[in-house]
Amino acid sequence: MRNTFGNLLTLTTFGESHGIAIGGVLDGMPAGVRIDLDEVQRFVSRRRPGQSAMTTSRSEDDRVEVLSGIFDGVTLGTPIGFIIRNKDHHSADYSEIKECYRPSHADFTYDAKYGLRDYRGGGRSSARETAARVVAGAIAMQALRQLDITVTAYTSQIGGVSIDAENNIDLSIIDNNSVRCPNAEIAQRMEAEVLAARAQGDSVGGVVTCVVNGVPAGVGEPVFGKLHAQLGAAMLGINAAKGFEVGNGFAMASARGSEVLDRFACRNGKIVTLDNHSGGVQGGISNGAPVTFRVAFKPVATLMRDIDTVARDGSPVTLHPHGRHDPCVVPRAVPIVEAMAALVVLDNVLLARTSRL
Amino acid sequence: MRNTFGNLLTLTTFGESHGIAIGGVLDGMPAGVRIDLDEVQRFVSRRRPGQSAMTTSRSEDDRVEVLSGIFDGVTLGTPIGFIIRNKDHHSADYSEIKECYRPSHADFTYDAKYGLRDYRGGGRSSARETAARVVAGAIAMQALRQLDITVTAYTSQIGGVSIDAENNIDLSIIDNNSVRCPNAEIAQRMEAEVLAARAQGDSVGGVVTCVVNGVPAGVGEPVFGKLHAQLGAAMLGINAAKGFEVGNGFAMASARGSEVLDRFACRNGKIVTLDNHSGGVQGGISNGAPVTFRVAFKPVATLMRDIDTVARDGSPVTLHPHGRHDPCVVPRAVPIVEAMAALVVLDNVLLARTSRL
Amino acid sequence: MRNTFGNLLTLTTFGESHGIAIGGVLDGMPAGVRIDLDEVQRFVSRRRPGQSAMTTSRSEDDRVEVLSGIFDGVTLGTPIGFIIRNKDHHSADYSEIKECYRPSHADFTYDAKYGLRDYRGGGRSSARETAARVVAGAIAMQALRQLDITVTAYTSQIGGVSIDAENNIDLSIIDNNSVRCPNAEIAQRMEAEVLAARAQGDSVGGVVTCVVNGVPAGVGEPVFGKLHAQLGAAMLGINAAKGFEVGNGFAMASARGSEVLDRFACRNGKIVTLDNHSGGVQGGISNGAPVTFRVAFKPVATLMRDIDTVARDGSPVTLHPHGRHDPCVVPRAVPIVEAMAALVVLDNVLLARTSRL
Amino acid sequence: MRNTFGNLLTLTTFGESHGIAIGGVLDGMPAGVRIDLDEVQRFVSRRRPGQSAMTTSRSEDDRVEVLSGIFDGVTLGTPIGFIIRNKDHHSADYSEIKECYRPSHADFTYDAKYGLRDYRGGGRSSARETAARVVAGAIAMQALRQLDITVTAYTSQIGGVSIDAENNIDLSIIDNNSVRCPNAEIAQRMEAEVLAARAQGDSVGGVVTCVVNGVPAGVGEPVFGKLHAQLGAAMLGINAAKGFEVGNGFAMASARGSEVLDRFACRNGKIVTLDNHSGGVQGGISNGAPVTFRVAFKPVATLMRDIDTVARDGSPVTLHPHGRHDPCVVPRAVPIVEAMAALVVLDNVLLARTSRL
Repeated sequence: MRNTFGNLLTLTTFGESHGIAIGGVLDGMPAGVRIDLDEVQRFVSRRRPGQSAMTTSRSEDDRVEVLSGIFDGVTLGTPIGFIIRNKDHHSADYSEIKECYRPSHADFTYDAKYGLRDYRGGGRSSARETAARVVAGAIAMQALRQLDITVTAYTSQIGGVSIDAENNIDLSIIDNNSVRCPNAEIAQRMEAEVLAARAQGDSVGGVVTCVVNGVPAGVGEPVFGKLHAQLGAAMLGINAAKGFEVGNGFAMASARGSEVLDRFACRNGKIVTLDNHSGGVQGGISNGAPVTFRVAFKPVATLMRDIDTVARDGSPVTLHPHGRHDPCVVPRAVPIVEAMAALVVLDNVLLARTSRL
Repeated sequence: MRNTFGNLLTLTTFGESHGIAIGGVLDGMPAGVRIDLDEVQRFVSRRRPGQSAMTTSRSEDDRVEVLSGIFDGVTLGTPIGFIIRNKDHHSADYSEIKECYRPSHADFTYDAKYGLRDYRGGGRSSARETAARVVAGAIAMQALRQLDITVTAYTSQIGGVSIDAENNIDLSIIDNNSVRCPNAEIAQRMEAEVLAARAQGDSVGGVVTCVVNGVPAGVGEPVFGKLHAQLGAAMLGINAAKGFEVGNGFAMASARGSEVLDRFACRNGKIVTLDNHSGGVQGGISNGAPVTFRVAFKPVATLMRDIDTVARDGSPVTLHPHGRHDPCVVPRAVPIVEAMAALVVLDNVLLARTSRL
Repeated sequence: MRNTFGNLLTLTTFGESHGIAIGGVLDGMPAGVRIDLDEVQRFVSRRRPGQSAMTTSRSEDDRVEVLSGIFDGVTLGTPIGFIIRNKDHHSADYSEIKECYRPSHADFTYDAKYGLRDYRGGGRSSARETAARVVAGAIAMQALRQLDITVTAYTSQIGGVSIDAENNIDLSIIDNNSVRCPNAEIAQRMEAEVLAARAQGDSVGGVVTCVVNGVPAGVGEPVFGKLHAQLGAAMLGINAAKGFEVGNGFAMASARGSEVLDRFACRNGKIVTLDNHSGGVQGGISNGAPVTFRVAFKPVATLMRDIDTVARDGSPVTLHPHGRHDPCVVPRAVPIVEAMAALVVLDNVLLARTSRL
Repeated sequence: MRNTFGNLLTLTTFGESHGIAIGGVLDGMPAGVRIDLDEVQRFVSRRRPGQSAMTTSRSEDDRVEVLSGIFDGVTLGTPIGFIIRNKDHHSADYSEIKECYRPSHADFTYDAKYGLRDYRGGGRSSARETAARVVAGAIAMQALRQLDITVTAYTSQIGGVSIDAENNIDLSIIDNNSVRCPNAEIAQRMEAEVLAARAQGDSVGGVVTCVVNGVPAGVGEPVFGKLHAQLGAAMLGINAAKGFEVGNGFAMASARGSEVLDRFACRNGKIVTLDNHSGGVQGGISNGAPVTFRVAFKPVATLMRDIDTVARDGSPVTLHPHGRHDPCVVPRAVPIVEAMAALVVLDNVLLARTSRL
């Protein structure tokens, strides 16, 4: 609830965008897992702003400082506390919004809920909070690797440009282009889409696709905690996420049942599925096929245009653009999606150990 | 986790499809709410099978027996326990599947997780479990009504037939047609779609749309527990649900930011939004606009056709259809969507009482 | 929280004393555990009233009806729902207290919290609720037995009569006397103590001691969820419990450190402790020695005497005794203590499976 | 569970004694509470070592750094993250225990649970972790003060010296003596008890009493989450705590019911109790009287004497004393008890807001 996520493996995050630090506590990580903190740092750097023309020019180190839970490079089974200091304060940049409500931001709703807010850079509502999730996810991914489970996400749509079934995808090239698209040609078109939006002071949305390989059959809780329901909650909790679908998702709504059965077969003495319309989950429990899902992100609400809106007292006001903002957050969302997926999957792998005496 | 849902208002369900009873415990319901149990029963009856040609001919009473928590027609603040006895046992019907794995059902995954399963009628994986959710949701809806919050869901797509922005919708006619569509003409086309699938021994999927009116601004938890993330988890936990989107959802992915801003204005001294692309939620917190979302359902996997699959030992087997099955579960999903939405909203309204000292 | 107890193994109870039924849902029980329901019934019958002169003459069957989660005598891994119908209604007996607050009962505090209450027989505050805990505990004990863990509680004090270190105890005779004392001679003195209180229309308190054998080293969570903290919460949640101590408990307060060290030794290649002042727990985690603790119960507040008190409006009123009440609840608390201990231990044994990757 | 405590108001702590830092995240603190961080620091300093001859001479600053959740001196409703850096590292001091199990410490049990441990200064099992609880409790106390609720604990027993009903107590002098006893004469005798133990290289236990004034009637959850059960869990989760009792506690076991009724009366139109045997709680819910309880602490296991024990491989080993250790932890436990009590009470005050619609 609130700022804690997970069942047995829990992540609690804290921090405002322009406060002293953001951070988190990853609890329930099993003991004895060797963690490469440099790799964690590299993974976190994939989320940070200032990586390319696609993203905001705000430059941040996002240096992760792990404070506990890892000793001599190995997890202790105790909570892993970590912080990332906020270094790039330009509080003055944000004075204009102190008394105003930017449309499609959380300014108004925070005030409605709490009666006050930290207006600097969005405060707690800033996507900067997700850096803490990426730290935790990076640690979880190293544990998953020991279990031969891998999590890979990529950009499958930006604005009007998307990957479809006919396109080749090559997961090894995801980080070779600034939009994190696994098809070089489509990546270029996506980049053009982002730059076109930026040229107009506008922003553009997109979709991230994620594939989790190696999840053994039997993981997930079959009723409220269906594996895809937990993944859905995790993804919809990411800033700007507006939709989630598992397997064929919304396309299932227009399908006939006979078209989307995941047929069983026996291969090398093991029962497998020949299709994967369901995205690797049946009845909320993994079936051994890759777990696949997609997350829709809206275009960010901060535009490089004058915006008419209201002040706290309801009076009309026009906001003038400044600061630095991503015209498209989707590429930076890729590691966040991976991180949240890793947390959900590891959590459920642990849970699954208790389903039989 | 597992069979309990919610934060402050929690629902725990139990029961296998062909066991003695299903039921639930609704805990955290505030005291002093007058509950009309006849209305609860009528609401539950909306979910039950055998209502029309659209649904299975299996007839069940689904009589709700409330065992505790309501005294002299008023909630006590104590847990509301209730059961629905299972009356329509035809165990013989299910003997064929005891040792087989039906494709796109949960037979295989339950065995993978638990090492055994109640194979009669799907056991715990049967959608019959959702009747308990509908009981709880019906109670929650009566509490919400006292807070002037209403929850309304309807079928917006079945197979290739869907409501679009140009179509009139009239929420008062939802229960006047067998598909629960708020447009009579489209309802007829949807019914034809279902009957066509049934005639071929096939099934068809669809989409349920839900609108929650009256949620005050300030409800929802802004990080992991975003209001739409909680709604998403609730909906994706319903049997056969494969996708969830809030507001414009996946359509946001192809939109420009300038097209989907929810502009603020001041009306009668109150700050309101002129648009609702976001579905009533900004930063995870309600903004006072209607909360709107859509849920995609796959076509059910039980077809009236011979199906080739495998037995537990991997050997090939052909299943022959019998029994009674819905060619389309979407109309019956409508009250389940409403019930789960009601639980989430009431839970978060209660939570919101603690956001300020 | 509220009416749910436990981490991975959770028990949710419901029901008022004079409502239709009480019951519970035991969730998280691993699959594949063979359960003898007759044994469950016998265990539950140990708690029921009317067993001897020590206890109220109210006679109840307390027939447990298991509704789900067990199939062909084996747990499914799904929630185990169960109810016990309330049969012995004498609502008329309780009309006097409808508008009055009995001293040291929960009448006033329920009204303060909820604004209303089910005044019949104490409603939800009745110890009858604990019958549901005993059902769940009886099931947990059968699972623990498969892990060679046993839970045994007994009465170690009633009023001024107590077992001390010099007394022989024989756990096999606990159910041979009406006070559940493992020393026949002291049992007689305890019985005399209860009868003396009853003769005066009074009641008397006591202490239950519990020993859990077979808990392997490494069970329990070391910070907030220390094994003895979880046991303490479980025990203090039993009606009339006012104190809890683990191992030497309060006697530790007057001891020197040198007197209460639990010395280590190596026996047959295994590290063991030669002493057990700590009650089998160090740093919140079991050390392999028996887990021992004691629970203090107050004398019940219902006396067979006229009692001066106040009505809801504050006016003075005198209550006249009637009905049937235990002069001493301690013997009936013995199976409740065992049940709650079994739930805590099994829950933590499951949790301990996730402490290493 | 594990390293998170609380229902709506949750504290998650992290950190090993000799790692980089300890810290915590206090989530669910309502927005709009003015917090004096200097006062928080002063409160935390009451727990720190090196305050007097009674406590270890290890000197630490224990400077609290609040990283989030407080803006312009007021809570934001967002999580309050904080850290305390560990400054006083003498890792060399602890090399001897790396491969040994100190009796009545958590060395063995951590190894049994996790397969490894941070052996430096007890690692996570060190009472240093409780400094994070004291930070959170200090913040909670400032919120409670706004609700006119105060929490006061004191030392009521050390070894053989205790306060009894005949002794005067003056809560204003608690911090005037090194043992935190509210009776100056008895304080001197307690100090002598501690010094006598220290002179013999020994340690001594004691009891802390706590009184919470101002809790309104109606706070606490009546079944598993009884107010005193939650307090008990909180207290038993403190290092070295071995017993808990509410109100008259264990003395109730030898009492007659007629002796311990909390009689009601009406005073100035308000229903109050004339007695408080129950410690302010009936049926798990506060009745408006002061909430009182006592916590027993064992003597610390680290003695200034040679100790025979075993190494990890079971071989015998003798540990020689060095380092700096408290001969009695009870005075330093006083603010920890207050802190945990403040967290429980504020959490339940918030919960109580949702008991009626």
